[in-house]
Amino acid sequence: MRKIAIIGIGQTKVHEHWQRSIRDLAGEAIFAALEDANRESVDAIFSGNMLSGLLDQQNNLGAVIADWVGFKGESVKIESACSSGASALRAGMIAIASGEIDSAMVVGVEKMTDAAPTDVTSALATAADSDWELEQGVSFVGLNALIMRRYMHEYGWQHKDFAPFSLNSHANAAHNPNARLPFAISEKQYLNATMIAAPINLMDASPTGDGAAAALIVPLDSLRGDQRAVEIAGSGAATDTISIHSRKTPLFLQAAYLSAQSAYAQAGISLEEIDFFELHDAFSIMAALSLEACGFAEQGQGPRLGLDNEIKINHGRIPICTMGGLKARGHPVGATGMYQIVESVQQLRGECGETQVEGAKVGLAQNIGGSGASIITHILKIA
Amino acid sequence: MRKIAIIGIGQTKVHEHWQRSIRDLAGEAIFAALEDANRESVDAIFSGNMLSGLLDQQNNLGAVIADWVGFKGESVKIESACSSGASALRAGMIAIASGEIDSAMVVGVEKMTDAAPTDVTSALATAADSDWELEQGVSFVGLNALIMRRYMHEYGWQHKDFAPFSLNSHANAAHNPNARLPFAISEKQYLNATMIAAPINLMDASPTGDGAAAALIVPLDSLRGDQRAVEIAGSGAATDTISIHSRKTPLFLQAAYLSAQSAYAQAGISLEEIDFFELHDAFSIMAALSLEACGFAEQGQGPRLGLDNEIKINHGRIPICTMGGLKARGHPVGATGMYQIVESVQQLRGECGETQVEGAKVGLAQNIGGSGASIITHILKIA
Repeated sequence: MRKIAIIGIGQTKVHEHWQRSIRDLAGEAIFAALEDANRESVDAIFSGNMLSGLLDQQNNLGAVIADWVGFKGESVKIESACSSGASALRAGMIAIASGEIDSAMVVGVEKMTDAAPTDVTSALATAADSDWELEQGVSFVGLNALIMRRYMHEYGWQHKDFAPFSLNSHANAAHNPNARLPFAISEKQYLNATMIAAPINLMDASPTGDGAAAALIVPLDSLRGDQRAVEIAGSGAATDTISIHSRKTPLFLQAAYLSAQSAYAQAGISLEEIDFFELHDAFSIMAALSLEACGFAEQGQGPRLGLDNEIKINHGRIPICTMGGLKARGHPVGATGMYQIVESVQQLRGECGETQVEGAKVGLAQNIGGSGASIITHILKIA
Repeated sequence: MRKIAIIGIGQTKVHEHWQRSIRDLAGEAIFAALEDANRESVDAIFSGNMLSGLLDQQNNLGAVIADWVGFKGESVKIESACSSGASALRAGMIAIASGEIDSAMVVGVEKMTDAAPTDVTSALATAADSDWELEQGVSFVGLNALIMRRYMHEYGWQHKDFAPFSLNSHANAAHNPNARLPFAISEKQYLNATMIAAPINLMDASPTGDGAAAALIVPLDSLRGDQRAVEIAGSGAATDTISIHSRKTPLFLQAAYLSAQSAYAQAGISLEEIDFFELHDAFSIMAALSLEACGFAEQGQGPRLGLDNEIKINHGRIPICTMGGLKARGHPVGATGMYQIVESVQQLRGECGETQVEGAKVGLAQNIGGSGASIITHILKIA
């Protein structure tokens, strides 16, 4: 496949943007990415979004966003629940690789916080199996709680063993001006947080948020000495059963494994070369499962990396969630995958200040839709 | 762009499938397309759907459908309101053209009829501008009624002048076993039909429906003497303002014009070579506007083609809606674009019996999302 590079990025703060429409949020990120790339236009727009139909009474979002930014060309929305952002990036990459277009704007956008909380809970549950899971009355957090409980039982972990994931994300978010929860937390705060769906408490769960993140992509071979360009060296996508009960085990993210293997092979990169990992810590159990599926820990041993300080910036083997992750940067669901990409570009450009991974050359980003049903993995490196 | 061919098609009847889930409908069309192509698998699945989140409490539909058909690879949903089906086809084509995959299943699927009618009306309205149109209390039919009323005023047409569009679609649907309303209607029935949103009456408006239509696509150059293969010779997509009031005129479908021009240029085909046109007659006014934007009539003169019998099979200049169109085959919104493609393949293979366009070599299909905000045009021809 023709190689692709990111030449511009933009993002809004993840926040409660009650005064702003979803198209306005997308527009801010898009215009910022155009300015960052010093370009005025693109050939097509690909948007990732999950909930605009349910929470904003707005479908046809591709046309809505194109209209807002004054564009009349091709513009479509891709939806794969919480992995919509990374799915949109893949759609944009593939379109450029096909030769049909020579530049694309990819934007992930979501607006969730000014709807009624019960509506948001119901809307998020549509990422799971409506016919065979939701039918039983379980929420999306509830499904993840079942996985976490089984994991703790199977491998002998205590709830407190997951604390490092949450503490690490919050510590990193404290330095990210775009984070939803830009503050560090203590282990005591983690342990005493309000229970949501046992064993998942408020500090195991990522917050909802409103926000947009965008990247302008072009063919790598069209660049002439752009020192800030970042290559998308590998991209992989895979699916797994939508119902967790249909899997051989609920404790292994097979689609994470398959999509990561595709991305590693495409990039020709080994695990040792990866300098940081923007993973999908929607819940702390997902951080553990992602680390395992991607090869950084044995099955059942993900929490060990946190306990051994291996996930910290400039200290551990594999820094994760360097800008706060879903847990503390926030999780505007359909936008999250593009926040991971934008933050990876910031790291590779060396623009992260206090949370800069020194000498970072290769980054991994993994975006999960549903409880592992749709997973997309990207590898970014300095072009 | 690498050339693409359709080697298998499948469809369900458009019907009130109250006993069947959305994944089951998609699966029926997919398995039929696999069997038709004599293949057992594909490299990726692209689904077009608009309303599963709102009416089935099911997002992440790409993963849901992949799961149902036993597939673990890449599977995503594309949404562009009522043009989701054609958007999915373009996504599949582009993915093959990129070299990332060598075969794709494209399926359009929708399940609408066992939700409360008021919920369906609200859901369909999400194709329009939530912030600046729906806010005023207008429904989607209401928006089209405003366009039709203005069109009649501007060009001097009477309501009865639109009758041929409805009569033609119904007459053709009578021979299509998969049609939702497989019966002819009289001009009297048209004129006396229940008013919905003046001047649009029940016979100007397409019915909702449940259904799925699928096509298996591969690179054209991978085929060796497949006599039934149909080439996708041209594909174009464009957008227009989401709000109708933002357009220079509400009476010209600019995105239809732009996407058709792209498709014509890509296919290297002139208007005279087109043997039939599967157009998006969601409302009879849209049939007139599509014919005009695609070059078959002057602006304001679309109804003339109907009155002069130019839209009839084996009689007129440009037969339209040969299997019943949206009006009578039915309009399961996110699936419609793929029904148009599947029916075009049936015509080009010469499998249409009573409604066969004799000697058909080239077909045009145009799918509209919103009241002209997202439009995709495809040209198919015998490979």
